[in-house]
Amino acid sequence: MFVKLINHTPDPERTVAAAARLCYSSVGAAELLAGLKDGDVARLLAHLVESGHESPIEHVTFTFAIEGISRACSHQLVRHRIASYSQKSQRYVREEHFEYIVPPSIAADAAAKRRFEETMAAVQAAYNDLLKLVPPEDARYVLPNACETKIVATFNARSLFNFFRLRCCRRAQWEIRELAYAMREEVRRVAPRLFSLAGPSCETEGVCHEGRFSCGRAPLASHTPNKARVE
Amino acid sequence: MFVKLINHTPDPERTVAAAARLCYSSVGAAELLAGLKDGDVARLLAHLVESGHESPIEHVTFTFAIEGISRACSHQLVRHRIASYSQKSQRYVREEHFEYIVPPSIAADAAAKRRFEETMAAVQAAYNDLLKLVPPEDARYVLPNACETKIVATFNARSLFNFFRLRCCRRAQWEIRELAYAMREEVRRVAPRLFSLAGPSCETEGVCHEGRFSCGRAPLASHTPNKARVE
Amino acid sequence: MFVKLINHTPDPERTVAAAARLCYSSVGAAELLAGLKDGDVARLLAHLVESGHESPIEHVTFTFAIEGISRACSHQLVRHRIASYSQKSQRYVREEHFEYIVPPSIAADAAAKRRFEETMAAVQAAYNDLLKLVPPEDARYVLPNACETKIVATFNARSLFNFFRLRCCRRAQWEIRELAYAMREEVRRVAPRLFSLAGPSCETEGVCHEGRFSCGRAPLASHTPNKARVE
Amino acid sequence: MFVKLINHTPDPERTVAAAARLCYSSVGAAELLAGLKDGDVARLLAHLVESGHESPIEHVTFTFAIEGISRACSHQLVRHRIASYSQKSQRYVREEHFEYIVPPSIAADAAAKRRFEETMAAVQAAYNDLLKLVPPEDARYVLPNACETKIVATFNARSLFNFFRLRCCRRAQWEIRELAYAMREEVRRVAPRLFSLAGPSCETEGVCHEGRFSCGRAPLASHTPNKARVE
Repeated sequence: MFVKLINHTPDPERTVAAAARLCYSSVGAAELLAGLKDGDVARLLAHLVESGHESPIEHVTFTFAIEGISRACSHQLVRHRIASYSQKSQRYVREEHFEYIVPPSIAADAAAKRRFEETMAAVQAAYNDLLKLVPPEDARYVLPNACETKIVATFNARSLFNFFRLRCCRRAQWEIRELAYAMREEVRRVAPRLFSLAGPSCETEGVCHEGRFSCGRAPLASHTPNKARVE
Repeated sequence: MFVKLINHTPDPERTVAAAARLCYSSVGAAELLAGLKDGDVARLLAHLVESGHESPIEHVTFTFAIEGISRACSHQLVRHRIASYSQKSQRYVREEHFEYIVPPSIAADAAAKRRFEETMAAVQAAYNDLLKLVPPEDARYVLPNACETKIVATFNARSLFNFFRLRCCRRAQWEIRELAYAMREEVRRVAPRLFSLAGPSCETEGVCHEGRFSCGRAPLASHTPNKARVE
Repeated sequence: MFVKLINHTPDPERTVAAAARLCYSSVGAAELLAGLKDGDVARLLAHLVESGHESPIEHVTFTFAIEGISRACSHQLVRHRIASYSQKSQRYVREEHFEYIVPPSIAADAAAKRRFEETMAAVQAAYNDLLKLVPPEDARYVLPNACETKIVATFNARSLFNFFRLRCCRRAQWEIRELAYAMREEVRRVAPRLFSLAGPSCETEGVCHEGRFSCGRAPLASHTPNKARVE
Repeated sequence: MFVKLINHTPDPERTVAAAARLCYSSVGAAELLAGLKDGDVARLLAHLVESGHESPIEHVTFTFAIEGISRACSHQLVRHRIASYSQKSQRYVREEHFEYIVPPSIAADAAAKRRFEETMAAVQAAYNDLLKLVPPEDARYVLPNACETKIVATFNARSLFNFFRLRCCRRAQWEIRELAYAMREEVRRVAPRLFSLAGPSCETEGVCHEGRFSCGRAPLASHTPNKARVE
């Protein structure tokens, strides 16, 4: 898996802080942006996190080049709708020498690995044969979920927070979890304070919202019908 | 304020339950929808709530006719972007006899009320005068935030959950909070089990996420940087 | 392919017409909805189409049960982000007897068909073997794009218009085009006037926006930089 | 009105070009980004425009500081839902010396201007009196649509194209049209080729989609039910 932050809004933490302050200020954003000291930025970011005021963090976006993930993983990734994607097309790009992703559970079992690899070889041969008879967009129907894909994805920080909350969780499949960790590492390099609290709720709130599927890392959040709770 | 649910996806709870079950079933949705017993629906809805599996509740939408709210309130309402709106236009509809919303704090204070009402009368007179000189879309620049508006709003259930979480909270302004309660009452009539747990986090989770602005109704959720929390 | 409209906002054309009229009326939506005659609805729908006033058509949603499509097709479908999806999960549902979609170009060629079917059989055998060794979510990495999936999809009418514009076009792949036609047929049964003008721009505007990839069914729309065009 | 592009994705045209090419390439995005020559960028951007392939332009975002617009205008602006906003709050910021926007039709008519200004003064006096009696969030109910606001808005390029198509049109009200032109000028400075074709359809396609409301600058696009058009 290759994950690289190839572009992002410059000076993301200062931008978020200026937008957040604008709501409570009579001064304009351009002036705020110029005047914010580093200590102000830190304080405003801490305050956003504390008060759950999420909308200012939408103003900064992050663009990732992602390679070496499976189509199984990209199918999960693109279900995150508040984001933008450009993906290598199997309709237009021929996969005569496709690479594939081997799940760790398969890599760790010699019999499974052998079975997996011989299947990939058989599929590759079939694909190449079909390519002589039908268009690539139809030949690709034999290609496996394991088939490697490349994708460019752009998220704003708020959508990333949601992504990390769901996909850094142990309930997520290993591949998209690995992707989420790699993306989080990338954005933490350029906006460490902003993303310090991005992650699953066991990490950020000390509770789990996964109910009976919880891994047990943190106690379950309560979900009691409000009639029982409220006077 | 007049809030009426004028349309919604029929049989919303069964629809949500069928969509939720599809994810884990080898049977199709049409068949699931036909075959679900009422007990199944109840069990599946409880399970969705418990496990935080929110996406199936997007399949049902609710359309509200809303009248007798101020433009101050509608400006807050339309900031909820995952929803659809059609609003009475001040560009095209003349406001020669506009109605206005009086905030309770003003209604409760005789001096404030008098000051408010005389201002509304002065603005109405100015608007009517301007209407003889300029187009309605420009005359309306004198109209107040208090000016009554009408709007049709359609939300899916997931977006409503978010709306109720934020706008039934005591930190929301009184008018949009009143609107949120009225909308919640409407949808609870047609989908009581689905919306039983919709509301602010003090009601649904027993914790508050508003930080220093908390009204104190529930203890604050912890937000500790994950380095401190995670091994 | 099985496509069935399993649910939708009742009385969709009247709902859209009432929302559209609200913008230009001093009467509220509930009253408008009750008072609209069928001729008014027809006139208002025609007017929306003529004036490109698209937002009122968002108030009605349509939920489809879709079965017998490939994962290749569902991967394209879920790229439409203004919609809601619940899909049969390959992580949780075992595919011991998966069905698969055969592209027409392959079905029409005996050699291709034989090659395709023997590959599907080989993949099924490999999957079943892997299932004894690893979890279903990992065994599925061998499953092909052709693998049948089931999905529930909910679109509002505006998003459907966009979907039909792009996916009823001959540049779309045969499978999602077939899906789009089937969905359009379904919604035209319940809202014929609303969807009469939904389709690719060659049908609805008499021009093509696909540039050099045009199938030639309609002349290309011009795209001239505006400096050349505007005085 | 003050409109300033305060932040944006660096190197926006190259970023868009790299994302666009990825779809049709077996090379990854990071490598594409590094390798693209300026001529390639120009050619790829022209191709996107020609073929209506809009999704790659979502990868770049633009953040504007906007001041000196009315609340009437900001109410229209925030109706564009595929964007992010942080707005100066009338709940938390006191408007003891509010500025206001004077519509040109009013500024041009001495009688109208006098009437408008005396009303603004009366409203300011009433607001200041109310502020002694009630909270700012309630006192603001007397404030006019003309009241000046400040807002930070972030759009991706695709959403900007839609914004410019609708709001640079002569049917848009003068204030948001002025805003749209100012925003377009800002982004054309940093991405001239990308935004060369952004504007109303009369400029970009040579046709008008406004039906009976057309200003007549370009001939109407045809909208004929497809049964009449298609074989």
